[in-house]
Amino acid sequence: MSNNKTLVISIEGGDGAGKSTVIELIAVHLQELSLPFIITREPGGVRISEQIRSITLDKNLQEMDVRTEALLFAAARRQHLVEKVKPAVEQGKLVIIDRFVDSSMVYQGYVRGIGVDEVYNMNLFATEGFLPDLTLYLDVDPKVGLDRIAQNPDREINKLDLEGLHFHERVREGYLSLVERFPNRIVTIDANQSVEAVTNAVIKEIELRL
Amino acid sequence: MSNNKTLVISIEGGDGAGKSTVIELIAVHLQELSLPFIITREPGGVRISEQIRSITLDKNLQEMDVRTEALLFAAARRQHLVEKVKPAVEQGKLVIIDRFVDSSMVYQGYVRGIGVDEVYNMNLFATEGFLPDLTLYLDVDPKVGLDRIAQNPDREINKLDLEGLHFHERVREGYLSLVERFPNRIVTIDANQSVEAVTNAVIKEIELRL
Repeated sequence: MSNNKTLVISIEGGDGAGKSTVIELIAVHLQELSLPFIITREPGGVRISEQIRSITLDKNLQEMDVRTEALLFAAARRQHLVEKVKPAVEQGKLVIIDRFVDSSMVYQGYVRGIGVDEVYNMNLFATEGFLPDLTLYLDVDPKVGLDRIAQNPDREINKLDLEGLHFHERVREGYLSLVERFPNRIVTIDANQSVEAVTNAVIKEIELRL
Repeated sequence: MSNNKTLVISIEGGDGAGKSTVIELIAVHLQELSLPFIITREPGGVRISEQIRSITLDKNLQEMDVRTEALLFAAARRQHLVEKVKPAVEQGKLVIIDRFVDSSMVYQGYVRGIGVDEVYNMNLFATEGFLPDLTLYLDVDPKVGLDRIAQNPDREINKLDLEGLHFHERVREGYLSLVERFPNRIVTIDANQSVEAVTNAVIKEIELRL
C-alpha cells in the first residue's frame, strides 16, 4: 500500500495524554505548511464502520464477549482502512490516524487479557499486513493523566476514564511493552510536558520523515 | 471447552447438498433416541450475532470489503459460540452446528481469495482454538446440486445459488482441500445418494462417536 513519499502515522496514548489537543495543533501546523493531509479516527464516517461501532457502543449489549468486541473493532478498522486511509495514501496525502492497531493490542490484548500476540495477528488479518510507517506514543504518568481528565471541564467523562489509577497504569504498561517490541515503528513522546512542548516534539518527528 | 462425552458436530456442504433436509431428519432421529441435543446455526437467535449478521446481509452496503465480511462472520460466530454452543456443551448436550469455521475457509478463504490459512487463523482467534469434534461434509456433484436447487419449489433462491456451475465447482474444490487437510476431523459423506441414504450415513458417523 505504501508508495514513495506517502506517510501514515498513528497517534497513541492513554486518556489524559493530550492526544486530542495535540492532534488539533498538528492539523493547524500542517495547514500552514500547505501539505495535503487527512486526520482521521475509526469509524471516521465510513458507514459500515459506523454501523459496526454502534454495536460495540450499545450499552444494552452487556453480554458482549471481549473477543467479539475485538473482532468488531478489527472489522470497523478494515473498512475504514479500505475506504478512507488507502484512497488518501493513493492521492499522496499524509494520513494521521488517532488510534490504530496498537490501541487494540493494549486495551483488548494486554489489559483485558486476550493476549497481545493474538490481537496483533488478528489485526494483521484486518489490515492485510499493513502497519503505520510511524506511531507516536504520547506517554504520560497515569496520575498526571487522571489529573488532566479531572481538570478538563469540556471533556465528557467516558467509561475508561473512570476505571481508576490501576487501569491507567496497566494501559501504560501495555504501551511500553509495544514500544519495546516495535522500536523502529513506535516513538515515545514525553507527554508530561506542556501541550506546546508535546506538539513540538510530535511535529519534529513527523517532519523528520517528510 | 470439550469435556468427556460431549460432542460438537458441524455439518458442511455446498448448496443443493441436502444439508437442511438431512439436518431435519437427524433431529427426528435424535429425538427418538431421547438424547439431549441442540441443532443450531449462526447467528441462531443470539442478539449480538443477529445484529452483526444484519450488517453483512444489508444489500445496500455493496462497498463491504471481503475481509470486513470475514471478520463480521467471525464476530457473530464468537458470540454464538459463547452464548449458545458452550452452555449446551456444559449441559452435556450433543451440539450440531449447520455450517461453522469451514464455511468461512471455503467461501471467504478459498473462493473469494483471502486465503484459507489466513481465514483459518483468524477464525481460531474467534473460537479460541476450538474446532468441532467431527465435521460431516456432504459432498455433492455440483451439477446434481444445481439440479436439486432448480427442482425444489420451496427453496428461496439465494445469491450463491445463482453463481453458476463454476462457482459451485470452486466451493467443492475448497471443501475437498479441507478434507485433505483435516483428515481426522472431517468425514466426507457421498451426498449424491438419496436423502435417506445420506441421512443414514450421517447418523452412522454420529453414533460411532456417542
